[in-house]
Amino acid sequence: MPSKSTWPRIHLPADRYFGPDPQQKHVALGLYEGVAGLPLLCPHGHVDPRIFADPNYTFGNPTELLVTPDHYVFRLLYSQGIPVEALGLPRRDGARVDTDPRKVWQTFADNFHLFRATPSGLWLTHELASLFGVEYRLRGDSAQYIYDQIAERLRQPDFTPRCLYERFNIEALTTTDAVSDNLAHHQAIRDSGWQGRVIPTLRPDGVVNLDAPGWRQNIIALGAACGFEIGGYRAFLNALRQRRAFFKSMGATATDHSALTAFTTELEESEAEAIFQRALRGAATASDAARFTGHMLIELAGMCLESDDGLVMQFHAGSLRNHNPLFFDRFGPDKGADIPVAGEFTRDLRPLLNKYGNDPRLTLIVFTLDETTYARELAPLAGHYPALRLGPPWWFHDSINGMTRYFESVVETAGLCNTVGFNDDTRAFASIPARHDLFRRVVANWLAGLVVRGIVAQDEAREMIADCAYGLAKRAYNL
Amino acid sequence: MPSKSTWPRIHLPADRYFGPDPQQKHVALGLYEGVAGLPLLCPHGHVDPRIFADPNYTFGNPTELLVTPDHYVFRLLYSQGIPVEALGLPRRDGARVDTDPRKVWQTFADNFHLFRATPSGLWLTHELASLFGVEYRLRGDSAQYIYDQIAERLRQPDFTPRCLYERFNIEALTTTDAVSDNLAHHQAIRDSGWQGRVIPTLRPDGVVNLDAPGWRQNIIALGAACGFEIGGYRAFLNALRQRRAFFKSMGATATDHSALTAFTTELEESEAEAIFQRALRGAATASDAARFTGHMLIELAGMCLESDDGLVMQFHAGSLRNHNPLFFDRFGPDKGADIPVAGEFTRDLRPLLNKYGNDPRLTLIVFTLDETTYARELAPLAGHYPALRLGPPWWFHDSINGMTRYFESVVETAGLCNTVGFNDDTRAFASIPARHDLFRRVVANWLAGLVVRGIVAQDEAREMIADCAYGLAKRAYNL
Amino acid sequence: MPSKSTWPRIHLPADRYFGPDPQQKHVALGLYEGVAGLPLLCPHGHVDPRIFADPNYTFGNPTELLVTPDHYVFRLLYSQGIPVEALGLPRRDGARVDTDPRKVWQTFADNFHLFRATPSGLWLTHELASLFGVEYRLRGDSAQYIYDQIAERLRQPDFTPRCLYERFNIEALTTTDAVSDNLAHHQAIRDSGWQGRVIPTLRPDGVVNLDAPGWRQNIIALGAACGFEIGGYRAFLNALRQRRAFFKSMGATATDHSALTAFTTELEESEAEAIFQRALRGAATASDAARFTGHMLIELAGMCLESDDGLVMQFHAGSLRNHNPLFFDRFGPDKGADIPVAGEFTRDLRPLLNKYGNDPRLTLIVFTLDETTYARELAPLAGHYPALRLGPPWWFHDSINGMTRYFESVVETAGLCNTVGFNDDTRAFASIPARHDLFRRVVANWLAGLVVRGIVAQDEAREMIADCAYGLAKRAYNL
Repeated sequence: MPSKSTWPRIHLPADRYFGPDPQQKHVALGLYEGVAGLPLLCPHGHVDPRIFADPNYTFGNPTELLVTPDHYVFRLLYSQGIPVEALGLPRRDGARVDTDPRKVWQTFADNFHLFRATPSGLWLTHELASLFGVEYRLRGDSAQYIYDQIAERLRQPDFTPRCLYERFNIEALTTTDAVSDNLAHHQAIRDSGWQGRVIPTLRPDGVVNLDAPGWRQNIIALGAACGFEIGGYRAFLNALRQRRAFFKSMGATATDHSALTAFTTELEESEAEAIFQRALRGAATASDAARFTGHMLIELAGMCLESDDGLVMQFHAGSLRNHNPLFFDRFGPDKGADIPVAGEFTRDLRPLLNKYGNDPRLTLIVFTLDETTYARELAPLAGHYPALRLGPPWWFHDSINGMTRYFESVVETAGLCNTVGFNDDTRAFASIPARHDLFRRVVANWLAGLVVRGIVAQDEAREMIADCAYGLAKRAYNL
Repeated sequence: MPSKSTWPRIHLPADRYFGPDPQQKHVALGLYEGVAGLPLLCPHGHVDPRIFADPNYTFGNPTELLVTPDHYVFRLLYSQGIPVEALGLPRRDGARVDTDPRKVWQTFADNFHLFRATPSGLWLTHELASLFGVEYRLRGDSAQYIYDQIAERLRQPDFTPRCLYERFNIEALTTTDAVSDNLAHHQAIRDSGWQGRVIPTLRPDGVVNLDAPGWRQNIIALGAACGFEIGGYRAFLNALRQRRAFFKSMGATATDHSALTAFTTELEESEAEAIFQRALRGAATASDAARFTGHMLIELAGMCLESDDGLVMQFHAGSLRNHNPLFFDRFGPDKGADIPVAGEFTRDLRPLLNKYGNDPRLTLIVFTLDETTYARELAPLAGHYPALRLGPPWWFHDSINGMTRYFESVVETAGLCNTVGFNDDTRAFASIPARHDLFRRVVANWLAGLVVRGIVAQDEAREMIADCAYGLAKRAYNL
Repeated sequence: MPSKSTWPRIHLPADRYFGPDPQQKHVALGLYEGVAGLPLLCPHGHVDPRIFADPNYTFGNPTELLVTPDHYVFRLLYSQGIPVEALGLPRRDGARVDTDPRKVWQTFADNFHLFRATPSGLWLTHELASLFGVEYRLRGDSAQYIYDQIAERLRQPDFTPRCLYERFNIEALTTTDAVSDNLAHHQAIRDSGWQGRVIPTLRPDGVVNLDAPGWRQNIIALGAACGFEIGGYRAFLNALRQRRAFFKSMGATATDHSALTAFTTELEESEAEAIFQRALRGAATASDAARFTGHMLIELAGMCLESDDGLVMQFHAGSLRNHNPLFFDRFGPDKGADIPVAGEFTRDLRPLLNKYGNDPRLTLIVFTLDETTYARELAPLAGHYPALRLGPPWWFHDSINGMTRYFESVVETAGLCNTVGFNDDTRAFASIPARHDLFRRVVANWLAGLVVRGIVAQDEAREMIADCAYGLAKRAYNL
């Protein structure tokens, strides 16, 4: 049986993630403390609204909460030759997988050293310590003891999503929802009288990207949601308009869009219609799909400017989805096998920006997985076009180094004012405080570096970190 | 009325821009102080020679000097939704714009916080304090007080460009001039007997790039300048040769060239002639233009090696000019709407380097806006070909982080010896000392980092910073 | 005659290459000291096995050892206009070059300042001091004195490669060998009874890349080595299999492959055969060559998985060989005129990874010269596919900044576990300890930065540096 006396303790120093210079660390700590208590704004994420709709929702066991659903976690374990079946990941074909949660947890703990110096490692450790009161580092020998600790905590009556929402001091939490979603969970939240602000975001990728899996079905569902059949391009646009209005009525302040590239192009309506008809017939080509998405991005930007819309437009470019067909066939999408490709924005976004980028009523927030575009393309573009803002470092770059590179590459050219603060972009609700805390600390350290080098004054840095932690997101997303 | 007691003071610490480690800071300060008094060499820039031709030239009001002409400034304000008309930027169509200089200044000051942590913010603050004696930070409440202070200073009789040239301790200032420019201002400077060294640089982009706006007119002007009609490719080459000789006779030591890409290719004379004839007929294609520029870059490198020429060749690649047609139509070129694109040099420069790159008599200085090419392509190329040198970090990268990334990416592979020091590349004459000072400080900090890590010795660092601040530019540009 | 009293001394502080913060430096030094004495694993390199086959092999004079064969050295001198003939580089045409070793050494020393802050400068200085006992910095005035010192040391009887192998504490040294090499030197080493582990690596580029110089001859040599004629694709595959078995029997644990891009594609056997036949007829096109290499990379990965093979596959992508034809014609290949090009892995490696990347029995180690692919493509890929590992920073990036950028870009996403430690990749046997020492120091400094920022604990950092210095390479290469 394990002997606790030999287990190393989790150490979360108050000055963690700050550079070692005593003067810089002192400034960083002061800046951090000034914003550590600010409410959390979560303007882009993937938490399931269902967990708030049911006031008594509980999280299940530690493995179900922390391992099986987290593709950041099983991705890395898989890369080291650990079958994801051994982590409880369900197979699409229904084949039996190892779902004894204690056994899965043990495998995870045995390999937790693989996460050293990764964001997942930092988030999980923070979460274990601050949310579950775990004192010992997760290792093979401490695994079952910690499992018990977490399980015990999960059974406590205040460990519901709604209680945690309040405990986390969240001011607004945004979900991401398919265009035909009836937002029943959001409605249930509203109906319940609970005061938490959980709002939807419209993500129409499934109908805008003609090569999306199940596009034909998605169009039918969209028509059903709208109460009319979508037999052509005009009806399609009208359906989108109707859904935008519906989402807005449910509290949405933004839409979200994703494509392999940032290619935009304006089509004649006749060409758009022809492509749409080909798609309905199942005859759209890859080029059709790329051109249609490129055209629709411009159309959707235009819709933001129509009266009574005013939704903020988010655009995530550059992820090649489902890189690994074997893995996809066995386990499905969104399982950590999406891989970035090089990006281009100067030429690709030009048609959209030329048409709508000079209008300050539009807010277009762009996210990239190609860091080379920060200083080369995105910061110069955002430092010119009134409509353009840069989203925070996305996905693999949501990390200490990723954030640091982002601020060091972007702000000199675009100004901090053309960034939009942080979003946690996560399915893992319980990890939200750890993610925001890490961001705030990295910003504090970056700004402290500017202060001690005489680049900004301390009072300026205080305003800048408050903007990063709260104000920029609040304003950019109209929250 | 504003109360000065509440205004924060400008703080320009002697050790600004240096890292916080006391040992490194001490070394950096020593290195900096060793070069702070060296004369300024300005081998590439855009100051108007007219301001030196007239011994009594004055700068107008503070807004005319510091806001309206600086596209670094109005670019960022525009990106935040401030109409550039409110900044006094004249419209091409002559429509009335807000030109009350005090009102424009107030708008600028109200928004000066947007420039936090940007080079423009640092340069302007340095300039305000050291050139105009401003003690308070520029804000909405201090705006008019500071306006008065600057205006007062601008009225003083020693505030002429010539006096400032001497006060700035400039040793040589290089302008950039169209190929058909008669260099009358430069001649006037010479004739005046004033000892300042203001020399021209030949920039033939307007005739070399067939798609340059007004190419046909430029060719006519070139012919007029040469005294013969340019009816074909041979005449064109001869005209260029004649202008090179003229510029050289007026003190020029360099030419400057710009293109969207670094593509070079050698054409048969017959093809060059055919393209040139098509251009004269207004029938040149985009491909013609790209091929002709690519060919002419090689031809121009060859001209450097002809007897009695010896001009240094500068090449700026990778800026997509006038990205925003609405803005261009309204306000014209060079207004901050040029956006970088990804670059390629290994393949693109190969034809030129294969033909002339082995000749140490040629100096080809390349500038890029794509930092990914520093370590990947340009440093390896410059570390091999005798003719190739790397220009300093250009434009958006003329910043603390940009310079730091440059030295950290380039020097390990190319050696410091294949770089060429600094150039300020500015239209804003009064900002020149601030720009050189920032560069020298960043170099001091970089080198101090090498010293304290035992990578170079202190006496070596002293030689290296003297090279960066003075020697490399002096030698590379034959100044 | 030179006066030693004025010569600066070499200073190699015990804490060199560590950041200046006292706390970080203390941690770094502790980490470094924990691994400084570990044996050296050299799993990829280009040392000539001949020097170990002859127990009495000696290194010649200082110039022959340190200047003439080192393209890192003459590359940079050439870039500054020094003819490589003056450095003793032999011309292919047999024209007389300056081969007085003392004169060449003097030129080298006169210009050694050019190597400030370059890896070559650091390696050479380390080598001079620790291997040859040189106390003074190499300069023009100290050149001949130091020449004598080195020459004296080279004459000592213990200065043989075998003695140095033991003195350097090398555990395994891997050479790189053409596919038809008879490995006679390796056999001689075995036969001699000497216990040093010098093992071959199979590099079949000369037969796999149809556009390799002398491909037809290489195929004939391969056939001769196998004892059968290679008249078609099947025979070609069988020949490769036979050579793999032979190399394995001689101790090889890995193969090495190189291509301009990472393009992979699976061909039908009929197409592979048709291309191979065209190549035999001298009629293969550039496209044929690219497709064949792309196909063979997949075939070769498959061979790793065949029973009794199990060789580790290394892949170096992105070097454009022999960029400078004039230089190539005069001096031949591998003379420092190979220049990197931008790389792509997400799409290019997909066919290979989709076919074999899910198999943990395969180890594919990828090297890139395009640092932008670290965080964007390679780390995400390696953090998913069980077969993929990332090689250490290659060539120009085998430097303090290059290694630092590598760890900062890769580990957050891929984990340290998907990297493979260090390899020195050098022809210069005597420089091996300096190279490993620099790597271990940079890792110590990187990890110390993580410790002082509370990202990893000190005991974790100790395990991580032991892995970087030894364990990762040992396991990845099955050494």
